[in-house]
Amino acid sequence: MSDWGQSGDRVQRGSDLGREPDLAEIRAAAERLRGKVLVTPVLSDEQLNEELGAEIFFKCENLQRGGAFKLRGATNAVLTLSEAEAARGVITHSSGNHGNALALAARLRGIPACVVMPENSSPMKIANVRRQGAEVVLSRPGRVAREAKIEELMGTRAMNLVHPYDDYRVICGQGTAVLELVEQVEKLDIVMAPVGGGGLISGTAIAVRGLGSRLGTSMRVIAAEPEQADDAYRGFRSGERVEVDVTDTIADGLRTSVGKRNFPIIRRDVDDVVRVSEDAIKRAARLLTERLHVLVEPSAAVCAAALLEGRLRAPGKRIGIILTGGNVDLAASPWLTGAPP
Amino acid sequence: MSDWGQSGDRVQRGSDLGREPDLAEIRAAAERLRGKVLVTPVLSDEQLNEELGAEIFFKCENLQRGGAFKLRGATNAVLTLSEAEAARGVITHSSGNHGNALALAARLRGIPACVVMPENSSPMKIANVRRQGAEVVLSRPGRVAREAKIEELMGTRAMNLVHPYDDYRVICGQGTAVLELVEQVEKLDIVMAPVGGGGLISGTAIAVRGLGSRLGTSMRVIAAEPEQADDAYRGFRSGERVEVDVTDTIADGLRTSVGKRNFPIIRRDVDDVVRVSEDAIKRAARLLTERLHVLVEPSAAVCAAALLEGRLRAPGKRIGIILTGGNVDLAASPWLTGAPP
Repeated sequence: MSDWGQSGDRVQRGSDLGREPDLAEIRAAAERLRGKVLVTPVLSDEQLNEELGAEIFFKCENLQRGGAFKLRGATNAVLTLSEAEAARGVITHSSGNHGNALALAARLRGIPACVVMPENSSPMKIANVRRQGAEVVLSRPGRVAREAKIEELMGTRAMNLVHPYDDYRVICGQGTAVLELVEQVEKLDIVMAPVGGGGLISGTAIAVRGLGSRLGTSMRVIAAEPEQADDAYRGFRSGERVEVDVTDTIADGLRTSVGKRNFPIIRRDVDDVVRVSEDAIKRAARLLTERLHVLVEPSAAVCAAALLEGRLRAPGKRIGIILTGGNVDLAASPWLTGAPP
Repeated sequence: MSDWGQSGDRVQRGSDLGREPDLAEIRAAAERLRGKVLVTPVLSDEQLNEELGAEIFFKCENLQRGGAFKLRGATNAVLTLSEAEAARGVITHSSGNHGNALALAARLRGIPACVVMPENSSPMKIANVRRQGAEVVLSRPGRVAREAKIEELMGTRAMNLVHPYDDYRVICGQGTAVLELVEQVEKLDIVMAPVGGGGLISGTAIAVRGLGSRLGTSMRVIAAEPEQADDAYRGFRSGERVEVDVTDTIADGLRTSVGKRNFPIIRRDVDDVVRVSEDAIKRAARLLTERLHVLVEPSAAVCAAALLEGRLRAPGKRIGIILTGGNVDLAASPWLTGAPP
């Protein structure tokens, strides 16, 4: 198991909450984010409901600034820094949406950001982070090399580490999406979100549990993940957090393992974890894009995929799904148009 | 020139306004549509602004119910029918978004709808209209056969014709999109919309002219159309309405010629018409889809295409673009992902 979590603990002391947050802290994050992140629309489609066998409300975080919910957690983390802390800047590692989101959040506060990215990242992604004004430091691919690079940088700079998911400030920020959703749509039976590192699903679960105990409702929270990266499913059932090193799924945002802070929240507050096949992910991403007229990245399609292939049966139920992101490199996505790969 | 317009005149008497509408009638349509059509979101993207050289606000009618602005005009027409008229149902011809929109609008009012479609329409489009509960009558392809079929049906049934664009009730409905846009975005310099039959651009132009004379502002209205179907451009310059019979452009919603009611409005209230290449349409549709994370059909991309290939230069201007639709058959759209056609 990695010891980078410990280094995260050390560096984050004083900034991270230090203890598990509750609904009140997610509400405080929502106040903090007001006007900084978009209140994203909720879309529905009758035909899609028929096809998926439920009444579904898609919370379109793919239309969030930066194209993903990640801006919520990154912005909350950046805004909770004191002036003195903020002046030292923020650092993270990411080959995907979190790096871009942190760079954007840092720019909005006017502080420096550094993003460690694997040297085999797509030039487009590297350019996107640089466009936000962040410094990009390349590392060799793989977790060990990446963590060594982060250690090295943090040894020489006093930047604030903002982990992509294993950070209570980030978890609180991600939890604000479902607060908006339940204001936009009444009487949901189920809320679904994908699980990768677990930032979104743990924030969502804390919020829904808090709302339930206040309102006396019993909304269920279901996580979905690719079969090819099913550490959350296995950990949820065994009770022991599972860490995988190499995963291979088209849902590139979900390749990572559940974080240490995220796992106990998921075990306690999530009702079930379902797994989906690669084929269903591709079919669902394409179906949602065509029916909802929004671009859906594969990682965002796993919840609908679970309905599509019958891994979750909830006939007639009102289901809120957090559509997590829409960052698709179209030129590298022949699956979307059905052209041969 | 077709005499079908006359038959439309005859049938619509008492329902159509009979004279050119003004801003007040578009405002009345907006009242009528409240709660029936979505207030669609406006999206922007900094990087896209840099790439297109202006500050652009996209009014996302591709996220409208049915995936296109067409629901506005169809619903306004259906709602202005008296009870006695409505009971007889509505009829139109369309191979695209209008037929689907009218079927949906009729279903929402609980009245019959009949849509004449060319027999070579895609099975998906025919199925979509039928799914709304409308009757589909197939005709041989081409305008002459289609109009003969409409004449025949109207000879035996007293349904109300709702023309896709050459109808003041439809024009008023389409004009409501820009009313929302100017409430959502302040101080626009330019408003752009595509022109096919001219329903949207004429409603937009009437609204903007009305707002301008009230507010003392000078927002310009620019129409865009494919070079391959440039009847609006030629008519705008010559002063004589041009009718083309066969056009070939990927922007299938813009293949039709400007209507008789639409042309004089465009001549008077539109500031300019610009033409774009097929290549620019495809590139723009793909660029918008990737940057805004919404699906953009080729017809909806012509305004951005004009900026992309320099047919309109408006550096630093604040431009509102009505993103008209997102109905893309992904399996038939290899251009979207750059796979070979």
